[in-house]
Amino acid sequence: MDASQVVVENIYLLVMVTLISVLQNTFFAQKVERECLAHTPASDRVSCANRNCMDAYPTFLAVMWCAGLCLNQAPAAFAGIIYLMVRQKYFVGYLGQTSQSTPGYLFGKRIIFFLFLMCVVGIFNYLLMRFFGNDYHEHVQTITNAASALLLIP
Amino acid sequence: MDASQVVVENIYLLVMVTLISVLQNTFFAQKVERECLAHTPASDRVSCANRNCMDAYPTFLAVMWCAGLCLNQAPAAFAGIIYLMVRQKYFVGYLGQTSQSTPGYLFGKRIIFFLFLMCVVGIFNYLLMRFFGNDYHEHVQTITNAASALLLIP
Amino acid sequence: MDASQVVVENIYLLVMVTLISVLQNTFFAQKVERECLAHTPASDRVSCANRNCMDAYPTFLAVMWCAGLCLNQAPAAFAGIIYLMVRQKYFVGYLGQTSQSTPGYLFGKRIIFFLFLMCVVGIFNYLLMRFFGNDYHEHVQTITNAASALLLIP
Repeated sequence: MDASQVVVENIYLLVMVTLISVLQNTFFAQKVERECLAHTPASDRVSCANRNCMDAYPTFLAVMWCAGLCLNQAPAAFAGIIYLMVRQKYFVGYLGQTSQSTPGYLFGKRIIFFLFLMCVVGIFNYLLMRFFGNDYHEHVQTITNAASALLLIP
Repeated sequence: MDASQVVVENIYLLVMVTLISVLQNTFFAQKVERECLAHTPASDRVSCANRNCMDAYPTFLAVMWCAGLCLNQAPAAFAGIIYLMVRQKYFVGYLGQTSQSTPGYLFGKRIIFFLFLMCVVGIFNYLLMRFFGNDYHEHVQTITNAASALLLIP
Repeated sequence: MDASQVVVENIYLLVMVTLISVLQNTFFAQKVERECLAHTPASDRVSCANRNCMDAYPTFLAVMWCAGLCLNQAPAAFAGIIYLMVRQKYFVGYLGQTSQSTPGYLFGKRIIFFLFLMCVVGIFNYLLMRFFGNDYHEHVQTITNAASALLLIP
């Protein structure tokens, strides 16, 4: 195994989720393009749903990659997949609503919070190890693996 | 060579393309700022062109970096450069059009697709190596290097 | 120390700044959501300020991470923190202004420029080392550490 394979080993699940998110972005963008060319009454809503999804996208990517690199890629990628499902539901739900009752600007807060927590734990664990020599990495990874299942609760 | 130099070795072409894209973003942003302060009739179009470019930017960055890390940085950076040229053409083309015939919301689909394919091949190759012990890394890199030249075909 | 700890060692400051920026994004997004639900007269301005901040966000993240990976994470993270403070000031300032005198579309140009320069120096230093065998890495890191203090000048 050369150096580049070691890199791939630690990130391949994250890359997969990123690729799926890119596919989803393309799906959203094509929806926007089709609706806007046809000037249907739904074009405003599609465009707004796409905008809200795109606004949150860099934040999601950043926090998922940080969580995956700092702690453990498997639960981070799992949370990423669930985020993408929530986003799909949000997008479809946005289109079905009348403009009086659109869903809010934010979505997937719980998942972002979980990924955020993973980053904090990962950095905290690194600092503990550096300054006190305690290594709880294994335990923390097991706990996060288990905790990520809690995201399935609706 | 210390560890940080090894990191730089594997990403310096990607960083260069990212820097050029940042320069281009700044160019777009300054164009928006100037037009919007002057309240010219083109300010709507400039702002819309900039918005479409910025919407696609995180997707582009994510897929270029994944392709570069998973497989080979040279063709990924090359595809990135071509994407930036396509984007420049799109932006300038957007300004020159009347609002009746603006170019679509999407652009550079072929390049994004090429980078996407590079990621898929990279991950597939990693999984093959991990589970079956076959390493086609060298061959795959040569093929991608050659295939990236196909992007030059208009 | 296993491989993943070495990775964390080189990026933990960057991850911290990214986490703070995620918190700030969430703060901005909640502000937008609250104002838009209440349909206050300020909702247009909040939404516009948020849009401008979000447009610049991927550029900032890309350039900060590149600078941190190519040269030195400490000054890159420091510049990132200052950027976040400038952004906060910009957002708050945007809300307080009447629409006739909104601040421009761009902000934090000096910090982005500093991070950009760090990337260029990092790559240049890598190429020098590769082709001529000169290693100014230590000196360059010391200089950037000192130069980052200049960002504090208002």
